[in-house]
Amino acid sequence: MNRMFSIGLIASFVLSALAHYTGIASATVQFIISCIAIVFVAGFLGKATESVAHYAGERLGGFLNATFGNAAELIIAIFLVKDGMFDIVKASITGSIIGNLLLVLGLSLFLGGLKYKEQHFNVKLASHNGSLMTLAVIALFVPAAFAKSLTNFETSNLSVLVACILIAAYLLWLYFSMVTHKNELSDEAVEHGEPAWSKKASILFLIIATAMVAFTSEWLVGTLETITHQFGLSELFVGAFLIAIIGNAAEHSAAVMMARKNKIGAAVEIAVGSSLQIALFVAPVLVLVSLLFGKTMNIVFSTFELVAIGVSVIIAKSISQDGTTNWYEGVLLLVVYCILGIAFFLV
Amino acid sequence: MNRMFSIGLIASFVLSALAHYTGIASATVQFIISCIAIVFVAGFLGKATESVAHYAGERLGGFLNATFGNAAELIIAIFLVKDGMFDIVKASITGSIIGNLLLVLGLSLFLGGLKYKEQHFNVKLASHNGSLMTLAVIALFVPAAFAKSLTNFETSNLSVLVACILIAAYLLWLYFSMVTHKNELSDEAVEHGEPAWSKKASILFLIIATAMVAFTSEWLVGTLETITHQFGLSELFVGAFLIAIIGNAAEHSAAVMMARKNKIGAAVEIAVGSSLQIALFVAPVLVLVSLLFGKTMNIVFSTFELVAIGVSVIIAKSISQDGTTNWYEGVLLLVVYCILGIAFFLV
Amino acid sequence: MNRMFSIGLIASFVLSALAHYTGIASATVQFIISCIAIVFVAGFLGKATESVAHYAGERLGGFLNATFGNAAELIIAIFLVKDGMFDIVKASITGSIIGNLLLVLGLSLFLGGLKYKEQHFNVKLASHNGSLMTLAVIALFVPAAFAKSLTNFETSNLSVLVACILIAAYLLWLYFSMVTHKNELSDEAVEHGEPAWSKKASILFLIIATAMVAFTSEWLVGTLETITHQFGLSELFVGAFLIAIIGNAAEHSAAVMMARKNKIGAAVEIAVGSSLQIALFVAPVLVLVSLLFGKTMNIVFSTFELVAIGVSVIIAKSISQDGTTNWYEGVLLLVVYCILGIAFFLV
Repeated sequence: MNRMFSIGLIASFVLSALAHYTGIASATVQFIISCIAIVFVAGFLGKATESVAHYAGERLGGFLNATFGNAAELIIAIFLVKDGMFDIVKASITGSIIGNLLLVLGLSLFLGGLKYKEQHFNVKLASHNGSLMTLAVIALFVPAAFAKSLTNFETSNLSVLVACILIAAYLLWLYFSMVTHKNELSDEAVEHGEPAWSKKASILFLIIATAMVAFTSEWLVGTLETITHQFGLSELFVGAFLIAIIGNAAEHSAAVMMARKNKIGAAVEIAVGSSLQIALFVAPVLVLVSLLFGKTMNIVFSTFELVAIGVSVIIAKSISQDGTTNWYEGVLLLVVYCILGIAFFLV
Repeated sequence: MNRMFSIGLIASFVLSALAHYTGIASATVQFIISCIAIVFVAGFLGKATESVAHYAGERLGGFLNATFGNAAELIIAIFLVKDGMFDIVKASITGSIIGNLLLVLGLSLFLGGLKYKEQHFNVKLASHNGSLMTLAVIALFVPAAFAKSLTNFETSNLSVLVACILIAAYLLWLYFSMVTHKNELSDEAVEHGEPAWSKKASILFLIIATAMVAFTSEWLVGTLETITHQFGLSELFVGAFLIAIIGNAAEHSAAVMMARKNKIGAAVEIAVGSSLQIALFVAPVLVLVSLLFGKTMNIVFSTFELVAIGVSVIIAKSISQDGTTNWYEGVLLLVVYCILGIAFFLV
Repeated sequence: MNRMFSIGLIASFVLSALAHYTGIASATVQFIISCIAIVFVAGFLGKATESVAHYAGERLGGFLNATFGNAAELIIAIFLVKDGMFDIVKASITGSIIGNLLLVLGLSLFLGGLKYKEQHFNVKLASHNGSLMTLAVIALFVPAAFAKSLTNFETSNLSVLVACILIAAYLLWLYFSMVTHKNELSDEAVEHGEPAWSKKASILFLIIATAMVAFTSEWLVGTLETITHQFGLSELFVGAFLIAIIGNAAEHSAAVMMARKNKIGAAVEIAVGSSLQIALFVAPVLVLVSLLFGKTMNIVFSTFELVAIGVSVIIAKSISQDGTTNWYEGVLLLVVYCILGIAFFLV
């Protein structure tokens, strides 16, 4: 962790705390500061997770990375669930999925493609990723299609059951891709390098980083309602575009960096892997978490959200299925992201 | 045909007849007995068809197998059509399609994949099967999309025309896959072995088996209404899950057996071939049969049914398009089947 | 340009003018004559464009061909936009897309496949075409999904923005396929042969042909309303089937001719390329053109039209993604065209 990052991390976190507790800054300023702080603390959490994963050994480490890679989003969302802001939670889940599939992947393919004429990645992994993305869309689409004919109670039951099935499917996928079919699916690994810290420091930093993400998330969520009203933005747009872009800033830079190093396989793994994790793990876990807070968040997404997730998966699958990428495929993904962004902004 | 099977066949058929005609058993008992009887007589009909097909020579035999492979389902459905129970007919067509694509195929890939790391089948056949499944979904989806703006009379006309077109497409497909492009599409053939009976006996057994299926179907259908009410099950769930699983029991065991012998191509042919046959041949034939009974059954399926068929085809196509299978792909299919099962049960 | 064609061109154009200005012919006769004239003048315009493109050099020529290949449809549509007949414009856009993807491509594969057992084309181009067709469907589907929750003003804004994005994407596609990745995507080129005319004559003929198309289109459009009422046809059916078939007559014959010469790659390029151009260039340009006439045509297509375009793209993509074609794949496309034709006729 270089010096600049440390200073940025501490400064933005402290400023954000001051703004929140003293209340001297306007909601807008609070919002901006906590956005900046989120980017830093999410980056810090990512590094700490990676470092702990390194010491945990390959298999458990892979699991940790895969499961806590979106810890920041998960924590932000838990605070939103606690406050009963289910709509904004679903919007931010939607935004994370489409942000990873369209913006992160699109920028990676585009910027990587400007440097290299064609880039290649493991076609078998692409095919499995495609099928898993398809499962994710189906799992979100079926409850929505049936919800109109169900009572609230039945919808809750359906949501909890689907959530459990998805978590089971996700754990089996980890077992499949990390144990039984590890070699078939391996690609250029995401470069982790040597960890910067000792084992003890890594665990300590993981705990500290998690706490920092938790606090900053709470402060950010606190400003959302004011911001949304003040600028006349819909919750849908704020959740699906603003929060999602902020929460995924770390993935953005990592994936693009990989693509520019001609490691497009690693970039795809970050972008697609992350969106799969959100859909198949984070979303269902949030449904189960909401049970603990006493009011079940159902898994029924709005038509707009389903359209956004559906078209993102369709275009990403169409582009990635041949295992070859180029700059124009990045353009296609970014074009769809723009169209969705405009539609969400206007609605 | 081994001794145990013969005894089971005769015993279950006689018991089912007794239960129906004497009326001493409750509806539930009648239902259970005739379910068991259906499994046996469907198996008997399958064997008799295979045996006659053997003597008919390769080409006509292939045609017989392909066209009468789902004779049991067809006969059950004709009795339902005669009684005007169109909703349950459509539900059982839906159930047959998704049962074959998700449950039969899913179990085959899963159990085959536990034994063999990767299994392969003809990728060209997979691609054609995928396009045909796509046609099936389109042919069911278009009438449903237009039906709201059509009168009943126009919907009937549309249904009859679409039915004729689908039957023509199916016959051309048989011609294509069995005559003009036989070699390109051949895979490990489904093992038939030597027929157990002489030519005359085979024909006689085919007639007897058909009659037995017809009777048992009528008895089973007779109990459905009572059962549905008694257990508070929806017609949709009974048709799409109970009847479909019972009617396809023979395919289930055959496909799984093939997969365990590493003949995954044959398992896919049974599962996918069967669902194609239901969608492109059985369903349209039932529309035309309903004309004979004086009241046209239209081809407009409910939203739930279309969702179920649509997502089944999408996930099956996504999984089968690379011609390679493994246990996790089986899990994906079974997961979608579970989600649909829960949704249909609750609705 | 052979003698027969010249005579047909002049005769049909003069007759059509007479019928329109003297008014002695009934609307039906006027309609039939101008349909015939359209086929000739569209063919003339196509040849003139090709000839000018030849002199313009490879790159600019390719651009001209790609951009003005559908000039006839564009001109017809502009006259319809001027008269505010937005519904029939959208119907004819729909019809052009599905006509090219299903009828032109279907006939080419079918008739080519009767002569050659298997025909092959560049699988990389097929994959890119598939992704672009997917983008086209998404770009039409998203505004329709969101339009219900938008005001007319917001829908207009969304339409204009989406139109600009699509035109940008289309221009980048031309740059990609003609400059940066020309060699990867090249296939058997569409045969153009030596131009029949000198450079000056070519430019003169291009201007004359454009004017002739413009006049004939206006005469044809003038008869539409009468025809529609007289035969009880819906605008949807007239626009999506009659006008589309007439406007694409030149592509039909060219593509089928290529397929019969075993140049299936060229046939696919004509059919798929043409439908992409309609969706990604002609349709958005018409939205911008409508701005000039003072009343914005939005980009929101009806459910029926979206269903038709959606299923066409899905089946065409499913069939073309392996780069191999045969007669039965042609049948599948034609079957879907028939089903859609019947549904549009009845609705």
